[in-house]
Amino acid sequence: MSRPAWLGDAKAVAALTFDVDAETPVLAADPRYAHHPMVMSHQSYGPDVGVPRILDVLDEFDVPATFFIPGWVAAQRPGLAASIVERGHEVAQHTHAHRAPTSMTPDEERADFERAVAVFAEQDIPVRGYRAAMWGASALTPDLVAEHGLRYDSSLMGDDRPYALATARGPIAELPVHWSLDDWEQYAFLPEPDIGRVIESPRKVAEMWRAELDGMRHFGCLFTLCCHPFLSGRPGRLMALRGLIQYALDCGDVRFTRCDELAEAVLADPGITPRPLPPPPVYP
Amino acid sequence: MSRPAWLGDAKAVAALTFDVDAETPVLAADPRYAHHPMVMSHQSYGPDVGVPRILDVLDEFDVPATFFIPGWVAAQRPGLAASIVERGHEVAQHTHAHRAPTSMTPDEERADFERAVAVFAEQDIPVRGYRAAMWGASALTPDLVAEHGLRYDSSLMGDDRPYALATARGPIAELPVHWSLDDWEQYAFLPEPDIGRVIESPRKVAEMWRAELDGMRHFGCLFTLCCHPFLSGRPGRLMALRGLIQYALDCGDVRFTRCDELAEAVLADPGITPRPLPPPPVYP
Amino acid sequence: MSRPAWLGDAKAVAALTFDVDAETPVLAADPRYAHHPMVMSHQSYGPDVGVPRILDVLDEFDVPATFFIPGWVAAQRPGLAASIVERGHEVAQHTHAHRAPTSMTPDEERADFERAVAVFAEQDIPVRGYRAAMWGASALTPDLVAEHGLRYDSSLMGDDRPYALATARGPIAELPVHWSLDDWEQYAFLPEPDIGRVIESPRKVAEMWRAELDGMRHFGCLFTLCCHPFLSGRPGRLMALRGLIQYALDCGDVRFTRCDELAEAVLADPGITPRPLPPPPVYP
Amino acid sequence: MSRPAWLGDAKAVAALTFDVDAETPVLAADPRYAHHPMVMSHQSYGPDVGVPRILDVLDEFDVPATFFIPGWVAAQRPGLAASIVERGHEVAQHTHAHRAPTSMTPDEERADFERAVAVFAEQDIPVRGYRAAMWGASALTPDLVAEHGLRYDSSLMGDDRPYALATARGPIAELPVHWSLDDWEQYAFLPEPDIGRVIESPRKVAEMWRAELDGMRHFGCLFTLCCHPFLSGRPGRLMALRGLIQYALDCGDVRFTRCDELAEAVLADPGITPRPLPPPPVYP
Repeated sequence: MSRPAWLGDAKAVAALTFDVDAETPVLAADPRYAHHPMVMSHQSYGPDVGVPRILDVLDEFDVPATFFIPGWVAAQRPGLAASIVERGHEVAQHTHAHRAPTSMTPDEERADFERAVAVFAEQDIPVRGYRAAMWGASALTPDLVAEHGLRYDSSLMGDDRPYALATARGPIAELPVHWSLDDWEQYAFLPEPDIGRVIESPRKVAEMWRAELDGMRHFGCLFTLCCHPFLSGRPGRLMALRGLIQYALDCGDVRFTRCDELAEAVLADPGITPRPLPPPPVYP
Repeated sequence: MSRPAWLGDAKAVAALTFDVDAETPVLAADPRYAHHPMVMSHQSYGPDVGVPRILDVLDEFDVPATFFIPGWVAAQRPGLAASIVERGHEVAQHTHAHRAPTSMTPDEERADFERAVAVFAEQDIPVRGYRAAMWGASALTPDLVAEHGLRYDSSLMGDDRPYALATARGPIAELPVHWSLDDWEQYAFLPEPDIGRVIESPRKVAEMWRAELDGMRHFGCLFTLCCHPFLSGRPGRLMALRGLIQYALDCGDVRFTRCDELAEAVLADPGITPRPLPPPPVYP
Repeated sequence: MSRPAWLGDAKAVAALTFDVDAETPVLAADPRYAHHPMVMSHQSYGPDVGVPRILDVLDEFDVPATFFIPGWVAAQRPGLAASIVERGHEVAQHTHAHRAPTSMTPDEERADFERAVAVFAEQDIPVRGYRAAMWGASALTPDLVAEHGLRYDSSLMGDDRPYALATARGPIAELPVHWSLDDWEQYAFLPEPDIGRVIESPRKVAEMWRAELDGMRHFGCLFTLCCHPFLSGRPGRLMALRGLIQYALDCGDVRFTRCDELAEAVLADPGITPRPLPPPPVYP
Repeated sequence: MSRPAWLGDAKAVAALTFDVDAETPVLAADPRYAHHPMVMSHQSYGPDVGVPRILDVLDEFDVPATFFIPGWVAAQRPGLAASIVERGHEVAQHTHAHRAPTSMTPDEERADFERAVAVFAEQDIPVRGYRAAMWGASALTPDLVAEHGLRYDSSLMGDDRPYALATARGPIAELPVHWSLDDWEQYAFLPEPDIGRVIESPRKVAEMWRAELDGMRHFGCLFTLCCHPFLSGRPGRLMALRGLIQYALDCGDVRFTRCDELAEAVLADPGITPRPLPPPPVYP
């Protein structure tokens, strides 16, 4: 098999992605948490403290990244998306209210999607990609993404290499994610709402991610790392992420990319045939 | 005590087993997950990406393995079982729909069992062994296994050495498993359905399994490793499994075996007296 | 940006805090646990065995600390708060009955707060700060703190550097906490009531906290460590905490502080503008 | 303070204890698990495979231990208790049916207690101590223990040094336990019944226990290790326990003891004043 275009002459490609959820995950769980100052402050740390610090670290290594932002978050903090784009990074859509499409009706999903589109349009933020909240894309999601002119989704797990999805409006790229490359499962802790119950050491997390990167260099994969500024923006965790970036750069065979650039390479590759979303299986 | 025949001149015997569950565990939890593309893609990764990669690693070391496949999975992917057999490995039955026998009536269990038998017969896949979904064998299971001419079960935990089970149709071998030699408890994570909530580092997992292998070399045991391609097929985890196989080979005193060959050695050993399934105790 | 006054010439400031909860968390979960001797003894270990041992370790290194005590605990053990103050440490309020303010009506919160004030007043224990049980401060909490002449709260997570909160009665300092610098998530285990389900190794915990301290030295932060004597008073854990203190001292650029002294530095800093508690957001 | 008699010239005292629960914890959760062969086999591994292997390891180092056995388990396996006593170890009572006394009425607790007494009497097994199932001693438990002529309980956590409990029938010794020195929290895994959800590496467990032993050598404590043969009898875990015993012996300042001998030393020490069980506190 010849090397796929998206891989180029690298052994693995790394897409650093940050989901700037802010208060949305806890408010989606229950809006009454708006009245819990500690919970709100736990979440606001992400855009207020974590994002600027993460931008500085990215500058330090001059590596690009993609920030997935719910429309609601961008609307609440009008300068946030622009502050990211100005630093050379990509902003992409992460639903409006951080509700999983699978938990919405098609009409609700469309309304939520378009509400986010409107927010970013009003702020003149170019958006070329989408990630479903909770990675809970519905059967409608790829069509919505294509219909609005976006070029990729990043919510599915059917491979660890990018692929293309056929939609009613033509192909989009799929940049797959995985639970094991997400910081939420490692770091998130809140008793109410219960967003997680274990706090791992950054050393364990960095070691595990490095092992995955090394495996991906062996097999030629896409390392889609998904971090949350309210989690990975904490000092010790950010230093561990910094060490991981340094390690990847030292490897000399890992290419960092923004998701939009990667999506274009996938869509331009004649060797990649768009796959339809598999139909729901009949069981048993 | 003289050395049992199944151990031969090895210090421990290793049976690498892979449960190719694909979509069945989540569909058994709730068929509505058929409509959740991310969940489906999380599971399809196993047969589509994980299995070919695992087969390559087994080739690399030239070690045999046994793949337990639900009948439904084999029927959905007609070439899957054959692609495994062609590489010299064993395919065994893992129920039809990945429902635990203890959750079914005897009639349901029989129907499910025979549905899987029919799938493999139609595909000309020879099947000599069985593993219950969730390891949830019922009191009927050993009889069903023997009645259909299979030679072993691999679902119980009463020992860490193979033994023989008396059934109404003569003895079968029991190749015991254990939670601590399963990758599910270490790696499985999905919030809905909740299949697990902790993601461990491959380094921890490989270290733990190596410690168990070393202990088993000390005590003369059967190392039945149970991995799932949708979990252990991920790059970093597969590299850790690769390291474990390399370690076992380097020991020089660990024999790798397919389950069917091991079962024959157990059943041929006159020193092993078949035990009945212990009757349900009266408590308290 | 010039160095903030609270940081002085240090790279990070460390506030060792101990929440002497004793029986209150389990009794707040359900008063019937008063009749479970093991559960009661699990909690009484904190003030009875843990606190004296912790005081000895603090003496050994001559570092100051702040002990947050529920009023009920101070009333049950009349000499406890005084024994801490006599050793040069600070005692602060931790509600009366260890119920989260967010779980109480405003009247209940006020009554609980003032009951604790009365206990410490009767024991002539000067109190200058407050921490909400479960860090569950309400929108009323900062006002209550200021109204009673206290100088700081330590329950929120909006930053990892101290800040000032505007209240109806003037500013108070906020000394932020975080789940990752709390020993509860690492060590607490009880099935009934379920206060936690994982017991981590002190080595992992100390490593994680040291990584956070190192990150905080990089970014110039406040290391607010929150330990519970019934957890961190255990021998192996206390030795790990001892090692962490030794490490921080060896760094040469970490200043240990009592919370009250730090609060004064924050309130005296003209560069710090009091922020109002953010209003509950309208979602979505 | 002079050295307490029970400590002698050692820096710490180690009591290795094994709770031979066999099938009782799962049957106490729900008797229907009697019909789940895998669950039954998971538990029977303890007395059938784990205990003989543990006895061999204890022989290897010539260290004594105490085995707490539910009366029901001793009755089901008539030779079990005797096989332990014959090797020089102590057998003590662990309720009859492994139900926590706090979950029973006083009459039920007494009946359960006396049923176990009768089993051991019939088997001529001398019993001098007691441990409540789930460590769930009731306010009645110490009286029951003393009334039946037993010398100690080992279920509470009010200290990490032995103490004496005043009862209506005179003092008994209390040999305290703790969750962090129990193998259940580290190793137990079963989805149904849910007895635990995390499987730790023996390396982590041994490291944590060694850290606690080292801390206890520093502070002069009782290291009451509580292991379960169905968990710690597994090869890799037993090798880790073996390494811990070796480490303790190498320390040269740790004395191993049976619980009954330790209890006598405590009761004979005039410096130890029996404490009443603390009365249930009035809260808030």
